[in-house]
Amino acid sequence: MERMQNKSQNITLQEACAFLREREDFVVLCHASPDGDTIGSAAGLCLLLRALGKRAFLRCGDPIPQKYAYIYKGLTQPDCTPKTVVASDVADPKLLGSLREAYPDIDLCIDHHKSNTRYAHRLYLDAEASAVCEITYQIAREMGVVPGRQMADALFTGISTDTGCFKFSNVTARTHRIAADLLEMGADAAEINRIMFDTKTRQRVEIERMALDSMQFYHEGRIAMVTITKAMREASRCAEEDLEGITTLSRTIEGVVVGITVREKEAGRYKISVRTLEPVDASRLCGELGGGGHARAAGCELQGSLEEVQDTLAQTAGRYLAEAGM
Amino acid sequence: MERMQNKSQNITLQEACAFLREREDFVVLCHASPDGDTIGSAAGLCLLLRALGKRAFLRCGDPIPQKYAYIYKGLTQPDCTPKTVVASDVADPKLLGSLREAYPDIDLCIDHHKSNTRYAHRLYLDAEASAVCEITYQIAREMGVVPGRQMADALFTGISTDTGCFKFSNVTARTHRIAADLLEMGADAAEINRIMFDTKTRQRVEIERMALDSMQFYHEGRIAMVTITKAMREASRCAEEDLEGITTLSRTIEGVVVGITVREKEAGRYKISVRTLEPVDASRLCGELGGGGHARAAGCELQGSLEEVQDTLAQTAGRYLAEAGM
Repeated sequence: MERMQNKSQNITLQEACAFLREREDFVVLCHASPDGDTIGSAAGLCLLLRALGKRAFLRCGDPIPQKYAYIYKGLTQPDCTPKTVVASDVADPKLLGSLREAYPDIDLCIDHHKSNTRYAHRLYLDAEASAVCEITYQIAREMGVVPGRQMADALFTGISTDTGCFKFSNVTARTHRIAADLLEMGADAAEINRIMFDTKTRQRVEIERMALDSMQFYHEGRIAMVTITKAMREASRCAEEDLEGITTLSRTIEGVVVGITVREKEAGRYKISVRTLEPVDASRLCGELGGGGHARAAGCELQGSLEEVQDTLAQTAGRYLAEAGM
Repeated sequence: MERMQNKSQNITLQEACAFLREREDFVVLCHASPDGDTIGSAAGLCLLLRALGKRAFLRCGDPIPQKYAYIYKGLTQPDCTPKTVVASDVADPKLLGSLREAYPDIDLCIDHHKSNTRYAHRLYLDAEASAVCEITYQIAREMGVVPGRQMADALFTGISTDTGCFKFSNVTARTHRIAADLLEMGADAAEINRIMFDTKTRQRVEIERMALDSMQFYHEGRIAMVTITKAMREASRCAEEDLEGITTLSRTIEGVVVGITVREKEAGRYKISVRTLEPVDASRLCGELGGGGHARAAGCELQGSLEEVQDTLAQTAGRYLAEAGM
């Protein structure tokens, strides 16, 4: 309860560097269901600390997918009894998953989520950074450490994965300039991008095929709805991670303004994801159905028969389009 | 015939700038089947010349897809009787398509293809450039022209499309640094990337679905083969441009080393595209079947029944995998 009142002290980049320089023996924590940015930034920080002659290793509450092995190799085996706990790309202690109880006190959190719940003793937050790896790179530069090959690969991976390979609106001029530096430092960008963006599991291909088969259009093609039932998931033998990003499938079709993905959680209960283009507000649309989110990406849960759920969604989305004069 | 003997004079960036400064009244030619780089670089050059107080417009032998309208708006209407002819991103005069006869004499060619056939009077070739738009940006900088919004959008589009949104191995540190500059000059990068990379026609989605349905695996999943018949193309009502990039589909599946796409041209005649990962040499594989290409991407034509063609391909690719110990 004390932690709830003692909100984080906001610190500057220079203060974060001074803190890292003063302390010894680090463990750097990633968020559960790890992605390229939490792994890349934690690994990058460990390598940076080791370059300064310190001991540091990383931990994650979930197994780290094998495809990130080139980033974390040599860094997951504890090399010390940690005296300093850092969390990298962890917006809320809940996201530490199974590590949460083992680390109730986080000395420093490095993050780029505006929604950070300010749970750590110190917080360095840069909400303009496309990825925490952008911040880690700046820390390295500030501390005079030139990334070697593994660190360049690690930081490039986080930036590339958190920006959809430089595709999203979170990319700034700084993002591209840091990417340029990392290429010069030896990051194997093309191979990393191939692994992260051009490799699909057969299960993923199978569920995508089924998702496309299921697609229905409404409102003169301005609404596209994909349905993924439990039976489809079982038939394709796809894991949760194979479904990553599948919610963007419907919205990418030319002319579609509202893309809806209906996922059956259990009989009669559905998780809905809504992706929209301007001017339709996904957050308002889902809010009306008991959910919420952002203007372009939101979600909710609905109960009923599949047909009822699809009808409700098509009608609600249709009303928003009609209100927008479409 | 004279042109065949009088090969281009290779000029430097500075000489290209001097040439552009000296001349007046330009037409800038794009290649047929235009893409983002030929349109973007030609439009960028027209805007640059107009910023210098000159007259310039662009021409393409084929209709330019509507999705590029924000690039070429105001630039396709002739504003002069051209005295200077420039070709942008045109490696061979054949690629001018229907414009070839109208422009037998090209004063300057700006290109990044090593394979340029040196048909123009002057050639500025930078084979290190990921896109001709990278070169056009450098010309603008050399000539002291700061790109405005339309020019920044045009140049960003060419760079983004020719690199698969910064994904391919042709991206260098310079590519990222130029992208950073263009973002600062107002390029609407996220929206451009959405249009170019996150928008598929319904016909494309349909043919992709069919292509996935057709996929067959051989050699323990290391060979994936997609077949696109004429009947599938007709059923999906897809145009030639809807098939762009479909040849990468098979190779992106985890574990696949040789991705093969078989496209029926007419009864009994098939166009084959082969995409490989190391160590399989696609160029040698296709060369053996009467075609050719690059180490990772090559093609050939085969005749026979579909089953015969598929068998030949699976067996040949299987042999290459076996030779590589896979």
